[in-house]
Amino acid sequence: MDIDETIKGRRSIRKYQNRKIPDSVIKNLLGLATYAPSSMNGQPWHFMVVRAEETKKQLVQIKNKYCPAEKQMYQADFLQRASVIIVVCVDKQNSYDREVENGVLATANLMLGAYSRGLGSVYLSAYRNGEPAISDEIRKALGIPEHLHPITIVPLGYPDEIPEPKMIRALEDMISYETFGRK
Amino acid sequence: MDIDETIKGRRSIRKYQNRKIPDSVIKNLLGLATYAPSSMNGQPWHFMVVRAEETKKQLVQIKNKYCPAEKQMYQADFLQRASVIIVVCVDKQNSYDREVENGVLATANLMLGAYSRGLGSVYLSAYRNGEPAISDEIRKALGIPEHLHPITIVPLGYPDEIPEPKMIRALEDMISYETFGRK
Repeated sequence: MDIDETIKGRRSIRKYQNRKIPDSVIKNLLGLATYAPSSMNGQPWHFMVVRAEETKKQLVQIKNKYCPAEKQMYQADFLQRASVIIVVCVDKQNSYDREVENGVLATANLMLGAYSRGLGSVYLSAYRNGEPAISDEIRKALGIPEHLHPITIVPLGYPDEIPEPKMIRALEDMISYETFGRK
Repeated sequence: MDIDETIKGRRSIRKYQNRKIPDSVIKNLLGLATYAPSSMNGQPWHFMVVRAEETKKQLVQIKNKYCPAEKQMYQADFLQRASVIIVVCVDKQNSYDREVENGVLATANLMLGAYSRGLGSVYLSAYRNGEPAISDEIRKALGIPEHLHPITIVPLGYPDEIPEPKMIRALEDMISYETFGRK
């Protein structure tokens, strides 16, 4: 699929068909994720591939437990119906103080690759500043060692919804030339 | 350009030809950036488009001044020769505590779009945790108001280098199934 078409067509998908994504497709997507840039080319990623119902349930519970007030309409129950959940982690030792960036850049590739293959995904965070319990509980649920930081949670599935068209703010309002406010 | 080809081909480019990128191409790329997901669909982005030599010089100075010891081989002088520098900012008020993520996701689209159009770019951070002076100085140089947080600096130019092939760590070492270490 064309890059512009992929970027413009990708949307957050939270409803999935009851249809398994083959392991080969998952590996292929994680391969794409590793082409992301990383600080000092540290390639600090570790991808947890979750299919077990019980583990999905734990992730639902953790996400719901720590869901902030303003995001209550986005309950995480839908994770249970994803064919696969990827938890993108980064190794602090190879991240050069850019754990979040390194994790997010790999996640961007993963989501674009997924859309281009007819899969739906949505970006969820696996940590929050000032609330280490979230990452700790995710680590515990998946047996992830201390040096790996969970950054994102990406459910994947064949879409069972067609999202409404997305309205994007006027581009002119989002650009300044040379100094702020100059159009 | 195909999405896989774009993701796999994109590399960090720090040498640029003395050739101007048309404004229409820049707008097109920033348009792509706005299709990134954002927390609560806040679309909190503001893009600073910098071409002025004096401003580029200030960005070089700021980046070099705060360059950490382990990144000294990556001096920022090359920024001066970029045709355009984009500073990706996010509005804290519409970021739902995900300023960095929102900025990085737009930056990913920007860099992929650039590569697909024959342009080179490289990811630079515009902030560091615990060192607010970096963002403050960037804000001051560009007249950016306090509520906007500079997240990344992305120089763009027609490439004047062909990078060495990139070695990527073995994918198997970066994946676990269900629990950490299970292959």
